[in-house]
Amino acid sequence: MINLASDNVVGASKQVLEALIAANSGAEAAYGSDHYTAEAEAMLAEIFEHEVKVFLVATGTGANALALAALSPPWGAIFCHEESHVADDECGAPEMFTDGAKLIGLPGLNGKLTAGRLETAIARYPKGVVKAVQPAAVSISQVTESGTLYSLAEIAEIGEVARRHDLGFHLDGARFANALVSLGCTPADMTWKAGVDIVSFGATKNGCFACEAVIFFDPARAEHFGFRRKRSGHTVSKGRLLGAQMSAYLRNNHWLENARHANGMAERLAKGLGGLPGVRLPWPSQANEVFAVLPKATAKTLSDAGVRAAPWYELSISLPTNEKIGTNEVFWRFVTSFETAPDQIDQVIALARGA
Amino acid sequence: MINLASDNVVGASKQVLEALIAANSGAEAAYGSDHYTAEAEAMLAEIFEHEVKVFLVATGTGANALALAALSPPWGAIFCHEESHVADDECGAPEMFTDGAKLIGLPGLNGKLTAGRLETAIARYPKGVVKAVQPAAVSISQVTESGTLYSLAEIAEIGEVARRHDLGFHLDGARFANALVSLGCTPADMTWKAGVDIVSFGATKNGCFACEAVIFFDPARAEHFGFRRKRSGHTVSKGRLLGAQMSAYLRNNHWLENARHANGMAERLAKGLGGLPGVRLPWPSQANEVFAVLPKATAKTLSDAGVRAAPWYELSISLPTNEKIGTNEVFWRFVTSFETAPDQIDQVIALARGA
Amino acid sequence: MINLASDNVVGASKQVLEALIAANSGAEAAYGSDHYTAEAEAMLAEIFEHEVKVFLVATGTGANALALAALSPPWGAIFCHEESHVADDECGAPEMFTDGAKLIGLPGLNGKLTAGRLETAIARYPKGVVKAVQPAAVSISQVTESGTLYSLAEIAEIGEVARRHDLGFHLDGARFANALVSLGCTPADMTWKAGVDIVSFGATKNGCFACEAVIFFDPARAEHFGFRRKRSGHTVSKGRLLGAQMSAYLRNNHWLENARHANGMAERLAKGLGGLPGVRLPWPSQANEVFAVLPKATAKTLSDAGVRAAPWYELSISLPTNEKIGTNEVFWRFVTSFETAPDQIDQVIALARGA
Amino acid sequence: MINLASDNVVGASKQVLEALIAANSGAEAAYGSDHYTAEAEAMLAEIFEHEVKVFLVATGTGANALALAALSPPWGAIFCHEESHVADDECGAPEMFTDGAKLIGLPGLNGKLTAGRLETAIARYPKGVVKAVQPAAVSISQVTESGTLYSLAEIAEIGEVARRHDLGFHLDGARFANALVSLGCTPADMTWKAGVDIVSFGATKNGCFACEAVIFFDPARAEHFGFRRKRSGHTVSKGRLLGAQMSAYLRNNHWLENARHANGMAERLAKGLGGLPGVRLPWPSQANEVFAVLPKATAKTLSDAGVRAAPWYELSISLPTNEKIGTNEVFWRFVTSFETAPDQIDQVIALARGA
Repeated sequence: MINLASDNVVGASKQVLEALIAANSGAEAAYGSDHYTAEAEAMLAEIFEHEVKVFLVATGTGANALALAALSPPWGAIFCHEESHVADDECGAPEMFTDGAKLIGLPGLNGKLTAGRLETAIARYPKGVVKAVQPAAVSISQVTESGTLYSLAEIAEIGEVARRHDLGFHLDGARFANALVSLGCTPADMTWKAGVDIVSFGATKNGCFACEAVIFFDPARAEHFGFRRKRSGHTVSKGRLLGAQMSAYLRNNHWLENARHANGMAERLAKGLGGLPGVRLPWPSQANEVFAVLPKATAKTLSDAGVRAAPWYELSISLPTNEKIGTNEVFWRFVTSFETAPDQIDQVIALARGA
Repeated sequence: MINLASDNVVGASKQVLEALIAANSGAEAAYGSDHYTAEAEAMLAEIFEHEVKVFLVATGTGANALALAALSPPWGAIFCHEESHVADDECGAPEMFTDGAKLIGLPGLNGKLTAGRLETAIARYPKGVVKAVQPAAVSISQVTESGTLYSLAEIAEIGEVARRHDLGFHLDGARFANALVSLGCTPADMTWKAGVDIVSFGATKNGCFACEAVIFFDPARAEHFGFRRKRSGHTVSKGRLLGAQMSAYLRNNHWLENARHANGMAERLAKGLGGLPGVRLPWPSQANEVFAVLPKATAKTLSDAGVRAAPWYELSISLPTNEKIGTNEVFWRFVTSFETAPDQIDQVIALARGA
Repeated sequence: MINLASDNVVGASKQVLEALIAANSGAEAAYGSDHYTAEAEAMLAEIFEHEVKVFLVATGTGANALALAALSPPWGAIFCHEESHVADDECGAPEMFTDGAKLIGLPGLNGKLTAGRLETAIARYPKGVVKAVQPAAVSISQVTESGTLYSLAEIAEIGEVARRHDLGFHLDGARFANALVSLGCTPADMTWKAGVDIVSFGATKNGCFACEAVIFFDPARAEHFGFRRKRSGHTVSKGRLLGAQMSAYLRNNHWLENARHANGMAERLAKGLGGLPGVRLPWPSQANEVFAVLPKATAKTLSDAGVRAAPWYELSISLPTNEKIGTNEVFWRFVTSFETAPDQIDQVIALARGA
Repeated sequence: MINLASDNVVGASKQVLEALIAANSGAEAAYGSDHYTAEAEAMLAEIFEHEVKVFLVATGTGANALALAALSPPWGAIFCHEESHVADDECGAPEMFTDGAKLIGLPGLNGKLTAGRLETAIARYPKGVVKAVQPAAVSISQVTESGTLYSLAEIAEIGEVARRHDLGFHLDGARFANALVSLGCTPADMTWKAGVDIVSFGATKNGCFACEAVIFFDPARAEHFGFRRKRSGHTVSKGRLLGAQMSAYLRNNHWLENARHANGMAERLAKGLGGLPGVRLPWPSQANEVFAVLPKATAKTLSDAGVRAAPWYELSISLPTNEKIGTNEVFWRFVTSFETAPDQIDQVIALARGA
């Protein structure tokens, strides 16, 4: 079986696993006061070239929902793409953690919010008018749910709108590393230099078992976060489990190498599939995901051969207006990971070509 | 250093760690649809001799708060010991997950709720009277926060009150195995046979890295639990991390052996400390915890030698009325684990005796 | 001054006020157990030709938020028009009362949801998929926020989709009477016969001081409502205040006469304004509201003469695609009430004509 | 019938009712921007001799829950008497409005919290320890649920503890006027001069239909209150309904005269009942409530004659330790109001004496 349904179908990378084994022995203080967590925090400060407050948690939904709760009161409006993960794939976790803030889903091609749309949307919620929820935050995903990337300029434009309207700016970086190596910029460029206040820094999909960091660039915003994390059950008692994963993930550019590999595999797949007759890639493949419209016959050939991909939402508003998935077609997402082998990609391409 | 501050200062047991390594390779479906999780569920059904619905999560607070949310509406009353973990040590997680239910803390010696107190407390909240929160659940901890145990008869008495008043009955089993081997009964005896509806089945403290199971004996009560878990960020994407830990924990009575070892170490410590002049153990040591009143001089000797214990709440209402911690005394909790060595215990005793 | 900014700028009608005076003397049981409330409930059962459970509250936001909380779990999706009152004008009250359910705002001309749009939207939230909020309810406003009406057939179509997908169906009837007399149907026709489960039956705008009824046609849905109302502070202690208003409002068709009058005034205004050069009414005036695009010069004349209207949202998605408010124009809402005099309307028209 | 079950079984006072009638005509801005509300706010500032922010609402539960939400984060601890109204009689409204803060009920004779108990309780929740909810507020009722009063010195002592621990201090003044005239002090003495930050200033029980003011002495604390009020459905659209009641209530010392009358009636009743054989008043009657232990025979005589009182909680922890209600006794609360006639009190006493 070649499982490309997601980058969470694999385990941890060898480097991360070995670090976990090494961290297992000996006594360590609990609840995040262990040495491994301290090391991870120091590494993140260095990598981001900024003072940071770091909180490790085990899940991306936990990280995102906690981060948004740090940015919005219950009567706040959080602007995001209509099909973003926080809006669509977390069963209302942001609403739970913010005690009922309103996620305002905005349309946008290729899974991307634009500064202009954001500006217009904010105008609907006038400051101080009590019947209106109050603009509190904007959240973008980098990589987006369409496998695309915001350019640094686009992030900065959104950051500028956020700053002007006093919105907190959250970046959901479940695939942060994949975005970073694709843009070829520094973590600072992609975040605080562009106005980002809080990052959900994902490590699970790209090498860890279960580890994400919520990173604050302004310590004042983190003031109550320890209580929020504890109260939501996201403070892991044997904190070394998280600390050891994250420090191993970051050490010696392991995270960047993993991401480069995964992106390379996606590029290989995009090239291979994209050139086949009857196949369309409605969104550019800019990181480690390939979204393809395939003839049903091709899909069947792949399925029968044990290839797994994720059926995608055919009415996505992120698709170009003229893109219609035909009744003899499927719309699939392929995701590559640090473990995906070139050989597997080539097999998928060969199967599709043969179909 | 001999760290007996808690049973979460150690890592995972060898058996659990090896299972994790073994489970790392290959593709597995995400979000709890992996083979390891399925295996853990089957093992729990067998161990509890009952049909069960099982949900694995990474933290005890997550398990408890989710379980209580499954039992109480926002206008519900949840009865528990005034100093129980759910009331005192989770920063209001049950209130968050239940959307504002009221935890009614009841007094009780040795950390234990009594059926009589429960009955009296329920009477204050008449059914159908809208100004009163409505009795919805009772939650007990086994092992208690005082390191003591409910007898099977005591649990059954509480279960009987719960049944008669239509309360859900939750058992916080963060140290389930320690209680079980001490009582020498079956998991069924300690739970559904005594009226328990939902168990937070802890595995973290007794051998895992981070793994707890919420176990339902009535599938109807679990109907919405998948949404609750997802929405609170407690659905781990690489679910094998939890599944592999839990199945290894249960295999070949590993969990029971770990607990027997830890309990034996606590018994050794209780015997050794209990006999020393100036030392009192206000609560019977019935599992893997020893609570001791020590002369400050003794405490200093231990601290200086690198022994770590947890200072405890000197005004605890679980203490006998005539127990007063003197100004030249400390009140400490020692917790043993599957890793505690007899030699370490003997060192602690020798140090205390020497002081 | 001629204040047509809203139908809540006037006081209570003479009949309602007199009933309040009459109800003031003597002792009455509190919290809704008074005779006046009982009378109002009986009258509503008769008027709706159905068994009903009735809960009186003082505000429309309270009524709507409580009603939606009775229909949706925290992980539910509530479908509504993107610019509906529940979505846009209650500062997130539905999110607060449902403990974080998600309001899914759908586009639609003239402020109206369509059955087709609803069907499509539901498809995005597959049943049982834990990452997706679960379709729980649909809410429409009758009269809509655009001053338009759903036909009985349109309501029934939405009701049919709701029934098929097991959604609760809520009707926000802040201007219920205005809709009813305009359609010329019975209350039963406009509600339960078309599939509606719960009505926010507004009386404040049409003759009361502060009184709305949440009406359930299925008593089972109302099971916990008394707790919800109490817990949200919406159970008025001197319940006669609400009961006396509502019974007076309903007596001798007072509510229908008030609504007929208000609607007549709006019709008069729509005819008068609609025919003026440079004036457009982008939405049909079907009840007691007139939305007009006016030249700025006309608007100034009206303002200077003391006429008050409410500036409306110029980018409303309920407007026809080709409707653009020019830079020399304003977009205003006029609302008539039971107190509006023909003479006032004629003055407004004369002023506008003169401008 | 002589109904002394509560002071909410009567309607509004003549002065309040007439003001409502007078306020009914003419157009007024909605949502609290009317002239009557502005007048009430100005009067309260004068009466309290302090800058104030005032928010009118229709219910006491709304006022209390909103006030506490302004003082405590979701992870906060709110200290109050174990049998206070906010803890016991609002179906968890404070928990709903605070998004799950924890009310810590403290014991205390005569329904009163003591500064000493408060100090001890705070110590259980150390600042900055994430597992513990964080001390955020203290709330007292004046008049208490036992019909007793805090002296000014007692309030100031609690205020001092609150200030020292940085707790917000809330006073539930559902019977504010009754307390004030009994103590013979100024509103300033009983509130901000003693450290109180927010008052629920009740007017409903003492002359209005439905009107309470949430009063802030520090405008900064009120910053988000408008959103909280709107979002909870407590912003009345025809705001004159509240404004007219409150301004009439305060005008010409009407509120103080009403309270003096009610208190006088209670004093008359306490004297009359207190001297009868077999009758005990376990709590001093200090405002407009009398709590009496009566022989069952006496109770039957009263009931049969149409006298209504409220059966009270016989196991109240506010009772002296040696006070036990016998099996041949009842424990009843009598409440007098501005409408209670001396003749009614004398009838009740005569009936009891005759029994």
